[in-house]
Amino acid sequence: MTEIERLIALLSRLPGLGPRSARRAALALLSEPQQRLLPLAAALGDAARAVRACTTCGNLDTSDPCRICTDPSRDRSLVCVVEGVGDLWALERAAVHRGVYQVLGGVLSALSGTGPEDLNIAPLLARIEAGGVREVILALGATVDGATTAHFLADRLATLDEAPLVSRVGQGVPMGGALDALDDGTLAAALMARRA
Amino acid sequence: MTEIERLIALLSRLPGLGPRSARRAALALLSEPQQRLLPLAAALGDAARAVRACTTCGNLDTSDPCRICTDPSRDRSLVCVVEGVGDLWALERAAVHRGVYQVLGGVLSALSGTGPEDLNIAPLLARIEAGGVREVILALGATVDGATTAHFLADRLATLDEAPLVSRVGQGVPMGGALDALDDGTLAAALMARRA
Repeated sequence: MTEIERLIALLSRLPGLGPRSARRAALALLSEPQQRLLPLAAALGDAARAVRACTTCGNLDTSDPCRICTDPSRDRSLVCVVEGVGDLWALERAAVHRGVYQVLGGVLSALSGTGPEDLNIAPLLARIEAGGVREVILALGATVDGATTAHFLADRLATLDEAPLVSRVGQGVPMGGALDALDDGTLAAALMARRA
Repeated sequence: MTEIERLIALLSRLPGLGPRSARRAALALLSEPQQRLLPLAAALGDAARAVRACTTCGNLDTSDPCRICTDPSRDRSLVCVVEGVGDLWALERAAVHRGVYQVLGGVLSALSGTGPEDLNIAPLLARIEAGGVREVILALGATVDGATTAHFLADRLATLDEAPLVSRVGQGVPMGGALDALDDGTLAAALMARRA
């Protein structure tokens, strides 16, 4: 396998890139090595050296604890539980959560054999037991596994001595969504979540 | 800009990746630094060191002259002219050309101000004047600029002392294409190119 083939093979393993777009990307990089290829190689190396998982919340950042955990303006009594770092990034882009996070690193799944011991639940429990956590927001996906995980966590948190308030993100019609384009499950959830 | 933001910015500049897929790709890389991020960084560095443009034909390869130019089984008297290395790769994947190539590095374009002096035409003329080129296949895109470039090259090659046969790739209905899904230009070209 030549260097070109190897580069295409590695690029095609990225989410969102198939063999065809990996070839186009490799060609774009190889056509401008100074402007595109070397900067990307350097950025990957820098990221590998600098980025680590926050030991407090599981976020990926260049400092540990991460900038969210150390930000004095964030409400440490409000912990938002998410499945992955991508979910945390999405909430941060929307700038809708002023508390801190706990990244589970997955959801419970019978199919893939993910049990509670595979998720970062212990750090969450430790933070609650250390005191000062008022509310835990379960911001998990509206999937069977997400709902199962939310249910499990709500039960587990209720057994704690200093049990915090546990809430879940609302379900219903997404912003800009037309009713006739939605699936039955979303329509049912939206009707159930109706407000006066 | 942090290392993560810089990585996402560079990834999002690749063809086929927008900001959203660049974030997903960066997250996938950062989540598995040993398995994904470092190998890609190494592959980019290796490619930057090893890959260069063939001084004969303009192909990108790890040797110069490239493996196609030095392959004794290829017919050096049959030169296929393409716009870019991506076109050369496409023809090689299809394994339909047994000759060698000349990569122009673009097509004539009034809009982007690309003139004949911006294209690798001189190496092509030099190869023909050195003798032994029997046929030049103009495998350029069926666009206005591609047709203009083909026309220009055909005229230029006809003025040479040892003028080779000049041919163009056929136009018409693509394999698997339904007639009613084609544009008018393709239908017209297919009718013009009808054969008994």
